[in-house]
Amino acid sequence: MITIRDVARVAGVSVATVSRALNNSSAVTPETRESVLQAVESLGYRPNANAQALATQISDTIGVVVMDVSDPFFGALVKAVDTVAQRVQKHVLISNSWHQEDKERHAIEVLIRQRCNALVVHAKTLSDAELANFMRQVPGMVLINRIVPGFAHRCVCLDNVAGAVTASNMLLQQGHRRIGYLCSSHHIEDAEQRRSGWLQALAAHGIQPPESWIASAEPDMQGGEAAMVELLGRNQQLTAVFAYNDGMAAGALTALKDNGIQVPQQVSVIGFDDIPMSRYTDPQLTTVRYPIVSMAKLATELALKGAAGELDDNDQHCFMPTLVRRHSVAPLQNVASVTISTNSTM
Amino acid sequence: MITIRDVARVAGVSVATVSRALNNSSAVTPETRESVLQAVESLGYRPNANAQALATQISDTIGVVVMDVSDPFFGALVKAVDTVAQRVQKHVLISNSWHQEDKERHAIEVLIRQRCNALVVHAKTLSDAELANFMRQVPGMVLINRIVPGFAHRCVCLDNVAGAVTASNMLLQQGHRRIGYLCSSHHIEDAEQRRSGWLQALAAHGIQPPESWIASAEPDMQGGEAAMVELLGRNQQLTAVFAYNDGMAAGALTALKDNGIQVPQQVSVIGFDDIPMSRYTDPQLTTVRYPIVSMAKLATELALKGAAGELDDNDQHCFMPTLVRRHSVAPLQNVASVTISTNSTM
Repeated sequence: MITIRDVARVAGVSVATVSRALNNSSAVTPETRESVLQAVESLGYRPNANAQALATQISDTIGVVVMDVSDPFFGALVKAVDTVAQRVQKHVLISNSWHQEDKERHAIEVLIRQRCNALVVHAKTLSDAELANFMRQVPGMVLINRIVPGFAHRCVCLDNVAGAVTASNMLLQQGHRRIGYLCSSHHIEDAEQRRSGWLQALAAHGIQPPESWIASAEPDMQGGEAAMVELLGRNQQLTAVFAYNDGMAAGALTALKDNGIQVPQQVSVIGFDDIPMSRYTDPQLTTVRYPIVSMAKLATELALKGAAGELDDNDQHCFMPTLVRRHSVAPLQNVASVTISTNSTM
Repeated sequence: MITIRDVARVAGVSVATVSRALNNSSAVTPETRESVLQAVESLGYRPNANAQALATQISDTIGVVVMDVSDPFFGALVKAVDTVAQRVQKHVLISNSWHQEDKERHAIEVLIRQRCNALVVHAKTLSDAELANFMRQVPGMVLINRIVPGFAHRCVCLDNVAGAVTASNMLLQQGHRRIGYLCSSHHIEDAEQRRSGWLQALAAHGIQPPESWIASAEPDMQGGEAAMVELLGRNQQLTAVFAYNDGMAAGALTALKDNGIQVPQQVSVIGFDDIPMSRYTDPQLTTVRYPIVSMAKLATELALKGAAGELDDNDQHCFMPTLVRRHSVAPLQNVASVTISTNSTM
């Protein structure tokens, strides 16, 4: 690897002079600067970001931690952060946490050690205390989809319970009473909050759903397909299902179709998130919109402000989900035979 | 920010001793090391990756550059790199290039400056010369989906032309002759190669498709929908379309359905890539499989070997696409009226 010493040798100056020339110090004459730059060019020398960061203690990089960028929800989050970053000529480094405590911690530490002074973090496995500790160290660290007590002004979140109530009420208003829930098998508060919203809405109509109306799986298409097949097998005469997210809802659509059950005529399906794919399922998915793009943009702006010491301690940033009406929900049919049963599943 | 000087002060030793203690130098007594570690713990001091990288010139981080992680194809690529990285206890930093020359260059430079000594890069806009220059500097840099002359042993690629021939032949074997192409509007060689394969396959059957059988748009669902609507509007009596990728094919399915055209009874659709979503479209998408997971894993292994100076200069890594038969292609119907026409589009 070419080092600053090679540049100094070729330019016929000291290492300190090369350093001053590259940092645009006024103590270097234009002629010297020119000969240093020529040496840099001819050798292909690349100034070391580590050395530069050490010297200046700032970074042109915004760090992002998400569970898994290959999930469309997190893909949208990262893209939104990058949009803001490009506007301010910053670069984005992304790290996956894979929903594991040690990886989540390591992902944050790697980005801090890389001296990212603005960080947008989606963290679900670390404790409030540990996140608070990170946030005290890094004023430009902002959480998305999580509130840590004492740092609410640096947390951008969504009311998951309200979203689940909205989705469930949509089904209830269409006359459905036997409403299943396709739950995420990840142990994160979102799954619990959405389940809680579904329970609240049903309870307001005097319904106490048994555990057999819930099936859990990975929160993606394959998981939704498996969970829907599980519900069908239990023969609970459900006429509607609320899915943890749109990926699971899309998988449920496939499982229902494969079993000859028409959506929405026989069974209604509602999702959560409104990822781009939801417009391309058949039928197009009725869902609850998670404004992740707006939220991620705001989080990035807050992180940049935090890094610059310009945050207002009293702000709160809690978003509300909204209903997106498409074609996967219909009124309950008054025909007893039009329900899910094991007869139609195999 | 807590610095090494604060640690030295609290531990009652010199900065150099703190440094030696943290780098496990044998010149430090166990007692001194212990008091340094206690100071580190009590202060919440975080050793600076930049300083550590400078000292050791190695990095525990693998860098990945892709066009856009929110695209499912690149999501799968990144996930595969991370799988290999986890096996060797390395961390992955991801950077988007957004398909723009300056951002592609900057993304690579940022990761090099962060001292990632293993790099998996998907680069389409930079010249061969510039990429060769990067590869000479970083022995652990490997390209995916691109061959740079002289560096074939560090390039993992796919035969795009063969894939497009396979897809087009599938349609030709089912009796289709009027076969459109939904093309990516990105000016990258993949788009040109797949178009070339489609042209070759048709030419072998004496067909010279006019330009009006091609519609270009962004290579995603929305783009595929728009391009399909464009083809429909041109009233070319196409009975089948080959799409640049599965995202565009999924968008085309929606456009056809919205216009009352049945797939595959009236029009056959074939995609490219075999992203996970292709199993969840309606009908399930017939496509050509891009083995991106295997390719990305191999690229990561090569990058790690390259960083360790263990690469074989004579290896070649060119993968072949394979056909995945699902339900969006059917034999041509012998009914003159069953073709796309503007009558059925509006």
